[in-house]
Amino acid sequence: MKLIRFGEFGKEKPGVMIEGKRYDASGFGEDYNEQFFENDGLTRLAAWLESNQGTLTEVSEDVRLGSCVARPSKIVCIGLNFADHARETGAAIPQEPIIFFKSTTALSGPNDDIIIPRNSVKTDWEVELAFVIGKKAQYVDESEALDYVAGYCLHNDVSEREFQIERGGNWSKGKGCDTFAPMGPFLATQDEIEDINNLKMWLTVNGKTFQNSNTDQLIFKIPTLVSYLSQFMTLLPGDIISTGTPPGVGLGFNPPIYLKEGDVVELGIENLGSSKQVAKNWSRN
Amino acid sequence: MKLIRFGEFGKEKPGVMIEGKRYDASGFGEDYNEQFFENDGLTRLAAWLESNQGTLTEVSEDVRLGSCVARPSKIVCIGLNFADHARETGAAIPQEPIIFFKSTTALSGPNDDIIIPRNSVKTDWEVELAFVIGKKAQYVDESEALDYVAGYCLHNDVSEREFQIERGGNWSKGKGCDTFAPMGPFLATQDEIEDINNLKMWLTVNGKTFQNSNTDQLIFKIPTLVSYLSQFMTLLPGDIISTGTPPGVGLGFNPPIYLKEGDVVELGIENLGSSKQVAKNWSRN
Repeated sequence: MKLIRFGEFGKEKPGVMIEGKRYDASGFGEDYNEQFFENDGLTRLAAWLESNQGTLTEVSEDVRLGSCVARPSKIVCIGLNFADHARETGAAIPQEPIIFFKSTTALSGPNDDIIIPRNSVKTDWEVELAFVIGKKAQYVDESEALDYVAGYCLHNDVSEREFQIERGGNWSKGKGCDTFAPMGPFLATQDEIEDINNLKMWLTVNGKTFQNSNTDQLIFKIPTLVSYLSQFMTLLPGDIISTGTPPGVGLGFNPPIYLKEGDVVELGIENLGSSKQVAKNWSRN
Repeated sequence: MKLIRFGEFGKEKPGVMIEGKRYDASGFGEDYNEQFFENDGLTRLAAWLESNQGTLTEVSEDVRLGSCVARPSKIVCIGLNFADHARETGAAIPQEPIIFFKSTTALSGPNDDIIIPRNSVKTDWEVELAFVIGKKAQYVDESEALDYVAGYCLHNDVSEREFQIERGGNWSKGKGCDTFAPMGPFLATQDEIEDINNLKMWLTVNGKTFQNSNTDQLIFKIPTLVSYLSQFMTLLPGDIISTGTPPGVGLGFNPPIYLKEGDVVELGIENLGSSKQVAKNWSRN
């Protein structure tokens, strides 16, 4: 299945994508949140779709897509998980996963504007493969880790480099601004993806390619990440884990290149769809 | 008002503390969560208490207390916010607040056991003043920041120093283990506290005093923290911000002193009550 959420920000309805078309699944009666995943929602949704196929209402292409999952208990990101990206930022290759949190208020729709925060001059992009936790994970063995994964989605881990790196301490200051986590277009369940470790991923700004890689380049792969994270904290159903970005972020250029009002960011991962955001300056309203 | 939550973990009911006694407020019908604070719950609860005083059922002292607020969207902590504590850890005095996230799954009751995580040998304590956000905060000016605060509570920012410092990258690995955020006993609304910047705070392990300070030692005070954080992320009603710990953590000793099974940690802040946790080794179940 491919799960989508659509409609006004904060009032999204659940839907599904079938053969490229969007359908309303609000008759199913549940949002794609912690309770949905915890109570075997994917199995129940599949059964509901089976019973209701042919009666689903199509959702127009011009309706806004929201994040493909509801606001989770946490968004955990992996830093420097592509060797080439570590090199471009001047950092060492990590010996074990580097983690940080994004404020969950950063979550936004795949095609929503990226709001450049007040006083920001270094807002940057990061195409990433994210995955969603399907059941509560504590001290999970790597061999069983994929049982804890509900599915996969595209994520732009938008990052403010001054806030992240030059403002003291941990990276979270530059990762959790509003609109800094466009998520989707859809959550693909595991059965939709033949080989998660061999998917092309790319990102362009104003039509020019900046990131062009493949998930086969991940240093720490998904089972390792689930197991590793679950040693340090309990992962809850619906939690989002983002696996890190390949080379080609704005910070890596000399001089660096950052987003300015009107810039158009497009990104995609093979079989996980694409998203498009326009950068806008922050204004109070 | 002094808000408490009581009962089994995950099924806590709301209550209040009046003149040192605990009362059931589940008749009010709402947990102390994001929706409660967002919808002016404190004002409505005060009115409900006014109407129902004299009819409240007392809650026995032997009933478990839960965290004084429900699981929030985030727990943001401030690092090295006491000059003396920065020195004892060997770190420089921060020029601006250092922030990190605790996984919200770390939240536990004020007198629950501290579970020493699997493979942990450096579980440490940190008495802290925490505050809870009362309304959505984005780009808040310091002069108005206290309008965004619902109240104050006691927090033990339990920390695994190897996970935090020696395992690569940001601190969050050592801060978010289950039971690492005993919160309470109660949330005191602002009117309960005469001067939040002059409260004694202390922590003992097995009866021996390790931390003994005062909130007047905070480098960055609450209005600064609300304003500062709200530049980088949206703070939601019910979010918990923990303001940092004074000197006397186990890491600061030579050799360091860490918690072992059976150790008893007691901590308190003047007018915000006290809490007591027993350290237990992790075991599966």
